[in-house]
Amino acid sequence: MKRILALALATTALAGAAAADDLRDRAAQTFKPLPSTVPAVADNPASPAKIDLGKALFFDPRLSASGVFSCYSCHNLTTGGDDNMETSVGHGWQKGPRNAPTVLNAVLNEAQFWDGRADDLKAQAKGPVQAGVEMANTPDNVVATLKSMPAYNDWFAAAFPDEVDPVSFDNMAKAIEVFEATLITPAPFDAWLNGDDAALSDQAKAGLTLFLDKGCSACHSGVNIGGHGYYPFGLVEKPGAEILPVGDKGRFAVTATADDEYVFRAAPLRNIALTAPYFHSGKVWDLKIAVQIMAESQLGEAITDTEADQLVAFLDSLTGTMPAVTLPVLPAETAATPRPTTNVLP
Amino acid sequence: MKRILALALATTALAGAAAADDLRDRAAQTFKPLPSTVPAVADNPASPAKIDLGKALFFDPRLSASGVFSCYSCHNLTTGGDDNMETSVGHGWQKGPRNAPTVLNAVLNEAQFWDGRADDLKAQAKGPVQAGVEMANTPDNVVATLKSMPAYNDWFAAAFPDEVDPVSFDNMAKAIEVFEATLITPAPFDAWLNGDDAALSDQAKAGLTLFLDKGCSACHSGVNIGGHGYYPFGLVEKPGAEILPVGDKGRFAVTATADDEYVFRAAPLRNIALTAPYFHSGKVWDLKIAVQIMAESQLGEAITDTEADQLVAFLDSLTGTMPAVTLPVLPAETAATPRPTTNVLP
Repeated sequence: MKRILALALATTALAGAAAADDLRDRAAQTFKPLPSTVPAVADNPASPAKIDLGKALFFDPRLSASGVFSCYSCHNLTTGGDDNMETSVGHGWQKGPRNAPTVLNAVLNEAQFWDGRADDLKAQAKGPVQAGVEMANTPDNVVATLKSMPAYNDWFAAAFPDEVDPVSFDNMAKAIEVFEATLITPAPFDAWLNGDDAALSDQAKAGLTLFLDKGCSACHSGVNIGGHGYYPFGLVEKPGAEILPVGDKGRFAVTATADDEYVFRAAPLRNIALTAPYFHSGKVWDLKIAVQIMAESQLGEAITDTEADQLVAFLDSLTGTMPAVTLPVLPAETAATPRPTTNVLP
Repeated sequence: MKRILALALATTALAGAAAADDLRDRAAQTFKPLPSTVPAVADNPASPAKIDLGKALFFDPRLSASGVFSCYSCHNLTTGGDDNMETSVGHGWQKGPRNAPTVLNAVLNEAQFWDGRADDLKAQAKGPVQAGVEMANTPDNVVATLKSMPAYNDWFAAAFPDEVDPVSFDNMAKAIEVFEATLITPAPFDAWLNGDDAALSDQAKAGLTLFLDKGCSACHSGVNIGGHGYYPFGLVEKPGAEILPVGDKGRFAVTATADDEYVFRAAPLRNIALTAPYFHSGKVWDLKIAVQIMAESQLGEAITDTEADQLVAFLDSLTGTMPAVTLPVLPAETAATPRPTTNVLP
């Protein structure tokens, strides 16, 4: 009797292990664990000096006209790399048009912004600095600001050693890009993909199975569980205008192609539990409700409450570990530094 | 001949050493080097758990009604512990009434704010959170926000282990105070006070001599080179209204005593080279000009250009080394977390 029970238990355990391996095999066809090293970026080799410069720039509020906002303001590294707001507040208390995406793991996205209008992080970094509703600055004023501080001249020279005039708006963006590339956050799901059976709960594994079976993974796949490919929000059924405002036609603004109306880049889902509110409109605060909306609008399915909980448990397993970020010490302004202005241009 | 020269040189060196000791003896009667350990604060014993909680709170923008501002916004630890603005920008793009003082070494001030209206940092910390032009929040909303996140409940319980209901507005302020007390910045002047002759340049020593001789040190003394004692701005000669606006009567608002009109706490001068613009009005960007204004308004002296440069060299020696601050990882909002609002109350 005891032997039979032991055998039965062993068989169950084996079946469980086999099932785990099956699920891992399926998952491995769709997802990839984070790399163990900082991803390289195109046409912009990293160096310690460039990363340090990029960190300084990322934290420097003097990149904004007012001196109020830095990259960190809306991509807050203490709160999941975003700002926990519907849409960000910028220069003159103006509101941005779309929810600020997380900077964490953003280097792994195929393109940047909700509509993919920037090819990479160095292109992205130039946008908010100049946007009137965000940092409201100009490239010339940024360069004048940076050149006014001797330490920045030294740091740019060290980061771009072969250049005659290294302090430039382009190089600012490049340095920020290599710093941001360091912000990758290994999560329990990576540990599980890498073979650690205990890293995912049964609930999360059930959620992962649903994520694959229902078709979520058709768009949210790859190393960043999304962040590549463009799809209409409301593929099957358009959500209401309170969630999908009619005025924002998404990628249509980039391609001017009718097919691209209300098309957005599939959101990367790493750290999604930290980055409420959800969608480009930032209108949904509850991850479970966001999952239910996605199921209806993209898959045409009303999922059960239990299924939604399981999917959320899987998404929770994408919450990663932040790299330790020590604050930089920035140089002081000099007499030549352009002064901040809080004026809002008409 | 060689012996005479050697003797002469030795005598000069000895005289130099004696002069250095004389100056150090004089300085030691007026100033004190920073302590080698974090200062204790009254009625608020520190612990690692309390310091960690305070750091989390210091960086948490959800202490503000809008979710835009944290303590760090105006007391930016990358730029000398202040915000490099005339007066800070707060809720609704409103401007604060006075220049934001540095949080660095603020624990060493006798009282907080330009008018000393808060006895200590725990009293100070409650002010900006509630000020309509700053973070525009209420104690009740802050407590509801903190209680909505399980990790904060755990962290408050660990920081205040003997309390039944540890998540409170008072305890928020106490935790912030013990974190802020860790922000002390040893400077070359401390090294020199502690016996390192090479830590001050001759120019800085000449400036220190002037600082003592002219009477600057009558107000700016002690371990924080100021930060205690109240004096009229314009003791000898009132500066113009562009620097001393008539509408801000300083400590008069606290004491309602006619003698306290235009009286302010003597500013602490550590890291002063990092914290332009200067004075409670934030109207002067150049430290040398600020020194010249002080000489005229407080001492009735027009100092020479050379003297001003020497005084600035001494002030530069008060720029200290920041402690390494690693960003905290804050908990995510829950369904119970009050939502941010950017609305401005009429």
